[in-house]
This record gives sequence, C-alpha cells and structure tokens, in this order.
Amino acid sequence: MKKENKNYHMSADEFRKQGHAMVDWIAEYWSRVEEMPVLSQAEPNELFNALPNSAPEQSEDFTKIMQDVEKHIMPGITHWQSPNFFAYFPTGASGPSILGEMMSAGLGVQGMLWSTSPACTELEMKMMDWLVHLLGLPEHYLLENAGGGTLQDSASSACLVALLSAREKISNLSLNKLGGNTVSDKKLVAYISTQTHSSLEKAMMISGLVTQNLRKITVDTSYAMKVDRLKEQIAQDKADGYLPFFVCATIGTTSSNGMDNLIEIGEIAKTENLWMHVDAAMSVTAAVCPEFRDMHTGLDLADSYNFNPHKWLFTNFDCSALFVKDKSDIINSLSILPEYLKNAATESGAVIDYRDWQIPLGRRFRALKLWFTLRHYGVEGLRHHIREHIALAQEFASWVHASSDFEIVAPHPLNLVCFKHTAGDVVNEALVKKLNTSGDLYLTHTKLNGEYVIRLCVGQANTTREHVEKAWELIQASL
Amino acid sequence: MKKENKNYHMSADEFRKQGHAMVDWIAEYWSRVEEMPVLSQAEPNELFNALPNSAPEQSEDFTKIMQDVEKHIMPGITHWQSPNFFAYFPTGASGPSILGEMMSAGLGVQGMLWSTSPACTELEMKMMDWLVHLLGLPEHYLLENAGGGTLQDSASSACLVALLSAREKISNLSLNKLGGNTVSDKKLVAYISTQTHSSLEKAMMISGLVTQNLRKITVDTSYAMKVDRLKEQIAQDKADGYLPFFVCATIGTTSSNGMDNLIEIGEIAKTENLWMHVDAAMSVTAAVCPEFRDMHTGLDLADSYNFNPHKWLFTNFDCSALFVKDKSDIINSLSILPEYLKNAATESGAVIDYRDWQIPLGRRFRALKLWFTLRHYGVEGLRHHIREHIALAQEFASWVHASSDFEIVAPHPLNLVCFKHTAGDVVNEALVKKLNTSGDLYLTHTKLNGEYVIRLCVGQANTTREHVEKAWELIQASL
Repeated sequence: MKKENKNYHMSADEFRKQGHAMVDWIAEYWSRVEEMPVLSQAEPNELFNALPNSAPEQSEDFTKIMQDVEKHIMPGITHWQSPNFFAYFPTGASGPSILGEMMSAGLGVQGMLWSTSPACTELEMKMMDWLVHLLGLPEHYLLENAGGGTLQDSASSACLVALLSAREKISNLSLNKLGGNTVSDKKLVAYISTQTHSSLEKAMMISGLVTQNLRKITVDTSYAMKVDRLKEQIAQDKADGYLPFFVCATIGTTSSNGMDNLIEIGEIAKTENLWMHVDAAMSVTAAVCPEFRDMHTGLDLADSYNFNPHKWLFTNFDCSALFVKDKSDIINSLSILPEYLKNAATESGAVIDYRDWQIPLGRRFRALKLWFTLRHYGVEGLRHHIREHIALAQEFASWVHASSDFEIVAPHPLNLVCFKHTAGDVVNEALVKKLNTSGDLYLTHTKLNGEYVIRLCVGQANTTREHVEKAWELIQASL
Repeated sequence: MKKENKNYHMSADEFRKQGHAMVDWIAEYWSRVEEMPVLSQAEPNELFNALPNSAPEQSEDFTKIMQDVEKHIMPGITHWQSPNFFAYFPTGASGPSILGEMMSAGLGVQGMLWSTSPACTELEMKMMDWLVHLLGLPEHYLLENAGGGTLQDSASSACLVALLSAREKISNLSLNKLGGNTVSDKKLVAYISTQTHSSLEKAMMISGLVTQNLRKITVDTSYAMKVDRLKEQIAQDKADGYLPFFVCATIGTTSSNGMDNLIEIGEIAKTENLWMHVDAAMSVTAAVCPEFRDMHTGLDLADSYNFNPHKWLFTNFDCSALFVKDKSDIINSLSILPEYLKNAATESGAVIDYRDWQIPLGRRFRALKLWFTLRHYGVEGLRHHIREHIALAQEFASWVHASSDFEIVAPHPLNLVCFKHTAGDVVNEALVKKLNTSGDLYLTHTKLNGEYVIRLCVGQANTTREHVEKAWELIQASL
C-alpha cells in the first residue's frame, strides 16, 4: 500500500502560472522603471518595521506575496536598471542574461567540481576563451596555453585571489602546504596607487598581509600611478629590508577612469620580480571595439587580469572574469582536497575543478547567462551599444566643457565624466543631494585632489541621448 | 531632429515570449529530471570541443540557443534536482525560490550599501531575524540586540569571515587598521577536529594564518571532537608559546553528520578566550522542528554560527546564513570606506551596510528567494518535508541494519546515513562506481577510520519513499 504523500511544494502548474506572471512583472518593471524615482526615498527601517517578526506558520498564497512586493519592496528599491542611473557603475542586466539566470536556478547544479556538472565547468572554460578573443587579450590566457580564466563573484574576490596567488608564488617555502616561515616574517609589501580600488586594501587585510605593508603610490594629473614614485618606493622598501612582491595597475580607476601605464609598471614588475595584477573592472569592456584596445598595451606583462561582464557587458551580477598567465599559480594557492571531494575525474588530472580557483567551495552556473548574452547580442550588437555609451559620455563632456559654470576635472576617455561646478565643494555637494533627492536621476561623487567632484557614468542598457540631455538640463537647472 | 536608435536589446515582447518558454522549460525539466542519468556521463572536453571558439559576430536567435542547450548542455548536467540524488548534500531549489531569483535578476540591484537599495538590506535583516526564530537560535543573534545575521555565498566564506573576525578581536593592536605587529608574530593557533569541513583549512591558508597553525583534534567513535584532546593540545600550545584564539565546532560533519559537544567546547573557549565558531551547514535545518533542537544545546556560548538555507531549506544556491554574537567584531575586521562609497545614510550610522560583513563589495538581492520560500512553505510545510526526509533516512538505516551484507558505520541522527558492505574497500568502491555509472542514482563516499564508506543523504525536495526504496534495491542488486 502506497502511503499518501502530503506535499507543500509548489505544483508544476502553479509554478508555470506564477513564473509567467513573474516574467511579465519583470518586462513591465523594465518598461515602467524610467518613471520611478531612481534613488529610493525610503527611510531607515521603513521596510524592516513593516514586515512581521517571524515566518508565517501556514503557507501563504503567492499572489499575496506579490502584493507585498509592490507595497513594501518597491519603495525601497534604488533603480539600477533605470536609464537615468548614472551613479557608481552600470550593472549589466539584459533579457538574455535574465533567461540565463532563470535556467541556472532551474537546473540548480553545483559547479564545485568538474564531475558535479561537467557542462557548468566546460561552458565556463569556453566563455573565458571567448572573452579572450572578444577583448583581444593575450593568447596566453587561453586555456589551451599555460593560463586560463574563471568566473568569480566580484572584482574584490578576483583581486584577493590574485594577491593570494602572488603570495604563494613568492614563497619558495610553499608556505601554505608545507609550513615553514610565515608570510609576514618575509615582510612582503604590495603596491597600488592612491586611486586603486579599495578592494585591494581589503584583500591585504583579509590575507593577513596587513595594510601597513601596502604602499599607495601617488598619481599624476591624469590620475595614473607615478611610475618614478613606484620605483623609488620599491628601492626604499628593499633598503628597509622588505620584500616587494605585488603591484596592481588599473585600467580605468573607479573614481575617474584613470589609466595606469601597463608597460612601464610591467617592466618594473619584471625587473623586481613582482606579480602584476591588472584591475580593469568596468572600462575594458570598451575593448570589445578594436578602436579602444590601446588601453591593453602592456597587458602581456601582467600575471593576472580581471574585468566584470556584470558591469558594462549586459550580464547580471555576479559575473566577474579573472585571468591568470599561469594556471598553476592560482591552483597552488587555493587547492585543498578532502576525501569526500575526491573522484576519478579529478584524480585523472584531465579536468579543471574550478573550486581550486576561488575562495568558496560551491559555485553557481554563471556561464549560462554570459553565453546567452554574447550570443543574443553578437559582437556586432555589443560594439554598437558600447560605442553609443562612449559617444554619449563624450557629448556630455563637450557640454560641460562649453559651460562657464562647470568644468571637467579629469580625462574622460570612455563612459565616465568627472566634473564640478566652479563654485566649490559646498555647491557641488548640495547639487548632488538635490538631484538625487528629486528622483529624476542618480549621480554619485568622489574626491579628486581633495575636491568634491561629480561623476556621471553612462552604461545602462537603455540610456539614450534623451536621458543624457535631460540629465544635463537638470544639473544646470538644480543649482 | 531625433536620431533613430538602432537597438540590439531583447524587446519586451521577445523577453515575455522567451521568458514564458523558459518557465515552461524549467517546469518540464523538473518533471523529466527523474528519468535522466543522475551523474553526467559526459567525457572530459566533450562540451568544450563541441562549441565554437569565439562569440558569434551577429546576433543569434534565442530558439537556436535553446536547441544548443538540449544538444550540448544537458548531457553535461549532473542532476542535483533529481529525486535520485543522494550524493554530497542536497541543493535546495523550489518554485518560490526560483521566482525569487528571477525577481532578483530582473531588479538587478546592488546591495553593497543600504542606500544602493534599502529593501535589499532590510529584507535581508528581517530574514535573518526570521531564521533566528525559525531555528530557535539564541536571541542575541537578533539585530535589535548586539548580534546579527547576514547572507553569504557559502559556508566557506562564512567560516573565513568568522576566522577573520576572531583574528581581529584577539589582536588588541587592531592590526588591520593601525598597523602594529603582524598576525603570525603572535603565533595564533586555531582548533578544528579531523572531521571539520576543509573550508576551515582553506580559510587558514587565505588569511595567512597558515595551516601549520591549525590543530586537527582527533574524534571519538561518534566522530565528535575529543574534548580532552582539545584541552591537552591547548595546554601544549600555550606551553610552546603559541596563542590559541579560535575553535570551530561542527553540528553535523560533512562526512558522517558527527555532532561536536557545544557545551564542553564552549566552556573551554570561554576559559581560554577562544572565539567559538559553529559550522552547521546542512544539519541544523532540522531545528525547524522543535524535536530536533537539542543539537543546538550550548550554542549560546558560540561567537558565530553558520548554516546554509541553500542546502536543505528549499532555497537556491547561493544563500548561506552567518550569525555573530557581536556585530562590531565582524565590522571591525572587514570595514573599509573609500570616498566614492560615502553617503549620508552610512555616515549617520543608522543603517547597516552589509558590504562590511563579507569578502566582496558587491552583493545580490538574495533575501527575496528566502522570503518567497519561507512564506510559500510556511513553518508547517518546512517541518513536514524535513521530518519526512529524516524518517526516510532512518528507514533506510533500518534496512541496512537488518542486512547481513551491509553495516552502519556511524551514528545517523538525521538525514545522512554512512554505511558499507562488509567485504571491504575494494567492493565498496566498485559498488559506488557501478551505481553512479548506471545513472539510476548518485551516491558519494568518504573515509571514516581509514575505511571507504558510502554516504546516502536524503534531502532533495522531491525524494519520496519510492526513491529511497529503489536506491536500496539497486545497492543490493549491484554487488
């Protein structure tokens, strides 16, 4: 006699019904997002206090949940998908990418080992090779060569992995595996510029290399690392008994899109036996277009390289690409193999187990969304939109340039323009606050040379000339 | 004159069409997954070699992409959602959870700061409180008290964050922020058992605390840490000039569901001023049911605690819950605030910026899927299915127990049964290989006391008595 199975799972029919409704909800959201205040106007704890303190005892109807989404969640959303979002950096999202996320969730596989879903590993391998060709990266990053690529959750994690690989490589004692002296006994020092992303400092904290062994090199007037200062600092550190081991160069700094000189830094790295990591989170997406590939000059000198398809390549967060010149460096620093993860494929050495290329053990099937996105747009489509964004930013810059009230404060080679009102910090800060509170657009700020400056970054999929024009009108009208 | 905008984005109509089709594809997949070979039978590089070497120049039709999914991706999938998946650990996926992933992708917000989407932060805060009540956790983990919870990508990352918090706390020198002596100069040592998850060893590698300063304490016959040995080892280390600072206790070890004694370990931790982390990745989901809450006895002594809703709580990976007794410990160890992330809400101190609770900067809106799942099932529904899984595992254990060919090799308080054929390693290894190659079910192994043993873990949403019965029949028939 078969026991009757009571079942609380969502039925297939109900999932189809609610799933179709969710797809429509997303399509509808994308069409109405332009009308919403970009920066959420919610007060602290507004949502937290509005929800019950505990999960419900009994199952609730999904339509009731969706009502609560409209009532409680939507007012607390800052609309990163709005075409009027010019803050921070774009967060790529697109129809094909969302479809990839859906399939990944539906399949629900774990990609920690090759054997736990070969397709999850191998599609990722293939996508990493595609990115090498798409951006014109050095061929040593192709998996058939010594190097290779992998998807991480974020540039922060990618930088940390690069730093750990460098630490392991410099340590002839193979310190993690065999014991021996500890890292800090060696007084390892790393080099970044004052404009390098904060994730490098965080990586130093996490790795125990400690931030006092991180040297922030000053920058020139274009916010690129002063290479002479780097040289001097290295000489000083060596004289003081430190061991220089790592330098991070940036293609497109977060604050102002500053471009470090990869050739000069790379040559120093080679001479001084430093690992060179290149952080290129947003900007190098432009290298999809051949006319913007100059920024990669010198990249062949780098040991590792990272950029984020989840920023400007129409692919949902999280999807951050990390490449290393030599696979064994990354694997040596992060591999560990307990009995319960052993399997024939791993032991044959014929496959990649990507868990050895990252901090966590588990991993999602991220390559699907990248595959869907690259195929949907085609190289041609990607180039079209990236060129359009850059042209819009350049046009915006020309308006600022022509204005007597505002001025450009940094080079703007791509899609980010830093500018300020000539009246000083107080006026600029008030202007940003007024604009963001209006809900009509969202901009963020940074400080350059100690001054408060406004950043306008063009990169949302649906931002067009009209949105940029309107932004400029609002900026002028909000003084 | 308005310029005509050529556009490669997927239109709203096309997204609706393909989105509906994708929902149906997922529903269909879930209904046919039972018929598929659980462990992929793909050969290394089968998929990699089948795909083109570069992204297409022109946009491709989405129906063509879906044909390639069937042809190339599906043969390379190991079906974690199959009711015949008894390997590793379950990966929760459910209708409501997938709907949450869809909405998260559609909204495409960044939760790094409160201000970058207040709802993303506050729904997560609320869900963490819900989990405290749902599992009957100590009240100091509620956000209104000194502690609090956050969602991480994985237990590996959660363990690393706990270790970093402990390292920062023990260091009165505030080593990351202010400089001073480095970690390893202090000879910090950490304690785990031989059965603790490998992520702790990896966290020691990453943090630069180095694995030779990790002590693996032996276990008793139930695979719980020998507390006397822990005490002795601490005394020895202190005599040798080391500084004990961290111990990890496990509720439900990966290999065999071994249960460490939290009270005894916690008392030692208190006396010796160690940070106690409790790793409870899968097993404590059972604490949703009051009758299984005994395993939490002593948890009030812990400084941090982690479990994964993405394993056995019907929530898609990634969704790993980390709780700390004192919020300031985690924030002190991971906070860093560059100018471009400053904003009024952060500076007011009235809000949580969850980027300070994790390794990466960026973060997804993970709380949505947990909210949808908890509301869809209700506490009642969750209890029903968890009780069912435990009962099935217990029934399976009774069959093994009654068999003359097989024997149980470890306590099996919940949903994981470790057993072996009496004929020894060679037979057991061959048996697992034969079963997995058949595609009828998927099991993994571990080693206990140096012997190869088979693990059967019940926790997939749709696993019923018939699947477990069939598994037992196949195990017996495949000798």
